[in-house]
Amino acid sequence: MGGDNAPDMVVRGAALSVAKHPDIKILLFGDKEKLSSLIKKESALKGRVELIHTSEIITADMKPSTALRGSKNSSMRLAIEAVKEGRADAVVSAGNTGAYMALSKILLRMLEGIDRPAITSVLPSLVGDVVMLDLGANVECSAENLVQFAIMGEVFARFVLNKKNPSVGLLNVGAEDLKGNSTIREAHEFLKTNKVVPNLYGFVEGDDFAKGTVDVVVTDGFTGNVALKSIEGTVRLVIGHLRKSLKKSWVTRLVSPLFLPILQLLRQRLDPRRHNGAIFLGLNGIAVKSHGGTDAFGFSHAVGVAVDIVNNQVNDRICAELKSSDRLAAAKRSSASG
Amino acid sequence: MGGDNAPDMVVRGAALSVAKHPDIKILLFGDKEKLSSLIKKESALKGRVELIHTSEIITADMKPSTALRGSKNSSMRLAIEAVKEGRADAVVSAGNTGAYMALSKILLRMLEGIDRPAITSVLPSLVGDVVMLDLGANVECSAENLVQFAIMGEVFARFVLNKKNPSVGLLNVGAEDLKGNSTIREAHEFLKTNKVVPNLYGFVEGDDFAKGTVDVVVTDGFTGNVALKSIEGTVRLVIGHLRKSLKKSWVTRLVSPLFLPILQLLRQRLDPRRHNGAIFLGLNGIAVKSHGGTDAFGFSHAVGVAVDIVNNQVNDRICAELKSSDRLAAAKRSSASG
Repeated sequence: MGGDNAPDMVVRGAALSVAKHPDIKILLFGDKEKLSSLIKKESALKGRVELIHTSEIITADMKPSTALRGSKNSSMRLAIEAVKEGRADAVVSAGNTGAYMALSKILLRMLEGIDRPAITSVLPSLVGDVVMLDLGANVECSAENLVQFAIMGEVFARFVLNKKNPSVGLLNVGAEDLKGNSTIREAHEFLKTNKVVPNLYGFVEGDDFAKGTVDVVVTDGFTGNVALKSIEGTVRLVIGHLRKSLKKSWVTRLVSPLFLPILQLLRQRLDPRRHNGAIFLGLNGIAVKSHGGTDAFGFSHAVGVAVDIVNNQVNDRICAELKSSDRLAAAKRSSASG
Repeated sequence: MGGDNAPDMVVRGAALSVAKHPDIKILLFGDKEKLSSLIKKESALKGRVELIHTSEIITADMKPSTALRGSKNSSMRLAIEAVKEGRADAVVSAGNTGAYMALSKILLRMLEGIDRPAITSVLPSLVGDVVMLDLGANVECSAENLVQFAIMGEVFARFVLNKKNPSVGLLNVGAEDLKGNSTIREAHEFLKTNKVVPNLYGFVEGDDFAKGTVDVVVTDGFTGNVALKSIEGTVRLVIGHLRKSLKKSWVTRLVSPLFLPILQLLRQRLDPRRHNGAIFLGLNGIAVKSHGGTDAFGFSHAVGVAVDIVNNQVNDRICAELKSSDRLAAAKRSSASG
C-alpha cells in the first residue's frame, strides 16, 4: 500500500515481475477490496498471487517511532513478518523509508557480525555499475560500521553483479591518506592493515562514482544520501537543459525528432527506474526499498533486485565470508576497538 | 606558478582578464625567466602587469604543514602577503588547495565574528545560480560554523549575484525537521529562532542544487566537497553518454554535426570553467582558488570572481551585516552555546 501511486502501481509492478521471473510467487499485503479488483485486471497475476488482507497502512508522513508502536496489522509490518517467519524470501515496499527501515531492523534483526544495516544500491558509471552504501540508514557511522559496509558491499558486487575481485573505495574529500575526518581514516587504516577486503583501492572522491573508479563505494548514510541525490538531480538537470537547447534554433527544432531516440537511449542508460531497488544490507532477511515515486516498471526492477539477492544467497555468502576468513574476527576486533 | 598547466595557463589567463576588466592591474609572482618570455607573447598584458620574481614554488603534493613552515619566498605566499599588506586587492591561485587555504588563514586571518573560512562557489541550476559553502575547508563543522556560513553565503548571494532576499537552505538527508545529525539540527534551530538570515528556507537535499530550490546551500566541507564532485562527475558522465549515443546509428551519425551546437550550448551552460573560482569566504582579505586543471579561460573566470568580490565590497558588507543587525550577537551567542 506504500508509494505515491499505490496500490495500482504495485499491482501492475507485481504483474510485470511474475512475467519476468517465471519461478516467483507474490504475496500482496493490503486492502482486499482495493487490491482484488486491480489484481483481476492483470491476467499475468492469475494463480501467481496470494492476497493477505489488512486495512491498516503506514502513511508516508508517519514517524518511525509511531510506526513501531502501533500499526501491528499494517501491510508493511505483515509483509516483513512474512520474511521473518519464512513464508516469503524477500519483502519489497515503496512505502515510508524510515518506518520500513525501523520495522525491518526490529523484526528481522542483524546478521551475525554486522551491527548496522546499510541502504545499498547500484549506480551507473561510464564503465559499469557501482555498488554504493550506505545511502541513508545511518546519519552517523563509526569506523567499524564502515568496515562492515565494505565487507557487505564487496560480497554484493562479487555475487550479484558477478564482478571478479571487486575493488572497494572509501568516499572522502581527497585521495591522499591524510585527508578526511578521523572516522574515515580509522576505517581505512583498519581495512588496510587487516586486509579485510581483498581488493582495497583506498580513498575515492565524489567524481569517482561517474568515472567508475571502483566497484564498491563505502560511505556514511549522510554523505551517501546527499551524493546519491546530487547525482540524480544532476542527471535531470542536464537532460532538462538538453531539451531546452533542442528548442533554441529553427535548425535544431527541425531536426530534433531525430534526436529523440538519443534522448531515449540516454534516459534508458541513466533511468533511475532501472536502478530502482535499494537493499537494506546486513539484516537477517531480504528487504528491498523501492522509490516511492516510481512506476510499475521501476517497482518490478526492485522486485528483480530482491530475486537476484535471494537466488545468489547474498546473506549466506556474507555470513560465510565473515566466518571462513579472518573477516569476522577482524570486524569484531574493529568492534572492540571502536 | 600553481596548477597543472602553469605558468603558461596563468599568464594567458591574466591576459584574458585585463582585456575583460579594463580597470585592473596584475601582479604576477613567479620565476622571472619563465614568466617574462610568456608575458612578452601577450600584447594585452603590456603596461598592465608587474612581475615579482621568486624561485620558490609550493608544489601540488606538498603538505600544508610543510608549506606553512618553509616556502617563505614561494610565489603563493608572496601573493597572499601582497593582499595582507594592501598592495593587492585580491589573490588568485590555481595551486595546492590545502597549502593555499592554510597560508591564507595564517596570513590574512579571519573576519571579526567569523571563526572558520568556507570555500564558496557558484553552481548552475535549472532556474539560476546557487551559492554553495563549505566545499572542503572544514571536514568537520560545528553548528556555529554553519550559522556563520549561512550569514556569509546570504551576503554573497545578495551583493555579488544581485539576488533580492536570497533564500538559505541547510543541506540534509531529509526535508523533515527531525532528520539529520544533531549539528545540523542545532544550526537550523538557531537560525530559525534567532532569525539570523531573513529568508531561511530550512533543510534541502542533494537534488535541490539542480532544482535551484534555494539561492544559498550551507553544508560542512566534507559533504559539500563530495556533493560538488558528484555533480561535476555526473555532468561529464551524461555528456560522455550523449557523445557515445550520437555514434550509435547511421541516422544519428549523419545528423550529429547538427547536434554539435547543442552540445556546445549545453557545455557552455554547465561548463565548469564558467563556474571556476572558489572564494575562501570569511578571511580578512580576498583569496580565490582556481581549479588546478583549468585553462586560461577558466582562470580568467576565477580572476573575474575576485574582481566582483572586490567591486562589491563583500567583506565590508559581511562585517556591516554582522554589526548592524542582531546577527553578530546571534553568531556570538551561537559561539558561546556551541
